[in-house]
Amino acid sequence: MTQNRLIVLAARPSGVPTPADFRMIEAPVPEIGAGQALVRNTLMSVDPAMRPRMDDVPSYTPPFQIGEPLEGQAIGEVVASRQPGLPVGAIVNHRLGWRDFAVIASGTVVDTTVAPASAYLGLLGGKGLTAYVGIVNIAQLKAGETVYISAAAGAVGSAAGGIARLLGATTIGSTGSIENVAFLRDELHFDRAFHARDGSIAAELQRVAPDGIDVYFDNVGGETLDAAFDALKTFGRIASCGMISGYNAPMAGPKNMFTIIRKRLRMQGFLVSDHAASLPAFLDLVVPALREGRIAAPETFVDGLENAPAALISLFMRGGHRGKLLVRLGVEKRS
Amino acid sequence: MTQNRLIVLAARPSGVPTPADFRMIEAPVPEIGAGQALVRNTLMSVDPAMRPRMDDVPSYTPPFQIGEPLEGQAIGEVVASRQPGLPVGAIVNHRLGWRDFAVIASGTVVDTTVAPASAYLGLLGGKGLTAYVGIVNIAQLKAGETVYISAAAGAVGSAAGGIARLLGATTIGSTGSIENVAFLRDELHFDRAFHARDGSIAAELQRVAPDGIDVYFDNVGGETLDAAFDALKTFGRIASCGMISGYNAPMAGPKNMFTIIRKRLRMQGFLVSDHAASLPAFLDLVVPALREGRIAAPETFVDGLENAPAALISLFMRGGHRGKLLVRLGVEKRS
Repeated sequence: MTQNRLIVLAARPSGVPTPADFRMIEAPVPEIGAGQALVRNTLMSVDPAMRPRMDDVPSYTPPFQIGEPLEGQAIGEVVASRQPGLPVGAIVNHRLGWRDFAVIASGTVVDTTVAPASAYLGLLGGKGLTAYVGIVNIAQLKAGETVYISAAAGAVGSAAGGIARLLGATTIGSTGSIENVAFLRDELHFDRAFHARDGSIAAELQRVAPDGIDVYFDNVGGETLDAAFDALKTFGRIASCGMISGYNAPMAGPKNMFTIIRKRLRMQGFLVSDHAASLPAFLDLVVPALREGRIAAPETFVDGLENAPAALISLFMRGGHRGKLLVRLGVEKRS
Repeated sequence: MTQNRLIVLAARPSGVPTPADFRMIEAPVPEIGAGQALVRNTLMSVDPAMRPRMDDVPSYTPPFQIGEPLEGQAIGEVVASRQPGLPVGAIVNHRLGWRDFAVIASGTVVDTTVAPASAYLGLLGGKGLTAYVGIVNIAQLKAGETVYISAAAGAVGSAAGGIARLLGATTIGSTGSIENVAFLRDELHFDRAFHARDGSIAAELQRVAPDGIDVYFDNVGGETLDAAFDALKTFGRIASCGMISGYNAPMAGPKNMFTIIRKRLRMQGFLVSDHAASLPAFLDLVVPALREGRIAAPETFVDGLENAPAALISLFMRGGHRGKLLVRLGVEKRS
């Protein structure tokens, strides 16, 4: 246990990232100082929102630097500690994934009696809170309303659908993968689901929601956002959570912007990092539902740090995963 | 006084309306029935929002019909009445402009001791309330914030600037007419003003608001909206009031929609008709300010019903007017 493996940004991607944009390096396992803990990572998140950080443009988080390790949410076990809040043996949630060992000064100890550790990177973590903030704080979805969620098979989309269902709304989900339509309906219990193929989204949405929608939870942007503009009822709301269609290529803006006035729509972007105060209300809603099987927490696992780049790339391939995509680390033995 | 003149829609415009899209007809002055009053119109409003109603597409108001008279806000004097609420001699504000005489069953008697009758079609009427709703209810502008208002020399824009100033905000206005820049600064007291030329709006806005804007009051859409996206600060708000750049031609959607998420913007469309409950608060703010000269109520007059089509068309020409554009009727003598 003297060597650490880390994945660094080798090159800034043009369009969808490729394996050549990543490189694995080895380095000694770092020493810890006062107030620090050494964590052996066991699980890490890969996330569409990492893509904008691979470009050298200002965004809400600083861009990754070439030659420097990538970062991302991870869970691991404290193996050495000079930080009383992070005792050896604790399972902690922190921000330094993309490496076998991380030195952290702060992290959240997770309670694995509530749910498996992996849930804290998905439904009970930032993804679930993101979904809650979009549905509750931003869109103010009410019981009896109809919500349309794009990229509904993904980590945030599946959580948004589950939370909307807990609130008594009718849920419509779309997915870029035809195989995932049945998954949305049968395992995530969306009331209606469709396959979002380029050029057909407005027609499909009209087919499954002939009376329109009250809320659109946007993970995609582009054509899907345009279709939602058409389907939204008067006083409809759009929670702008992500626009994955624009992360790797220029994205056309809505063609029908005047719809915002004609229908008195409200469109609002949000970042979960502004809404930490909603965590208790979110957990109050979701933890009992998860325990009682009233909400699904779908996960897809990829094994091995060396496969993390391919896992990230797969997020931009339609239907590459279901629910939260996680990489398991330390599956192979090392000395 | 037996003949009435009315302007009807002769053809649906393609692009900017032309004189051939309008026709004046004559008809007998109508008889009034029980509960009705006959009004001789003296002033009428021409309004950019009439343009979408000239197309045969559903919108928030029904489209005008070919061969039927146009409608619009007007002020006139009751000359015959079988409606106790509208006595002969009363000056009333109603919706049947575009004709010399109108038969109405309801209307608002205006108090010309507060302000000249024309103000009830401008600052004290729907235009001023529209501005108030956008600034206060939708954008929730606060003292010390910076607001950018496009088409700021127009009826709504000038009112929005005046109301924002009353609230203690820093105001930036743009106008499509170079002559109107000084008007914005000197007569409407915008803190900063610029000439919005195609292709230069983002650069100009950056020049006059290097620290960014908190609120954008949108009357224009298109390139101006794109520029506002760039200039808005984190948690900025857009009050979507109008998109005149798209009324006569297809309008490009924003190129940089992801900005909504990155900056956590809120964009909301509104129609004044949903906000009648704000009328008392609006008048409480604006009437004393108007009396005390703390807000301007700019007006431009065109004489003669026969010139109303040209007046409407001029709204789509840059710099065609300042403040509220009104047509005076009955200026010439008729028998």
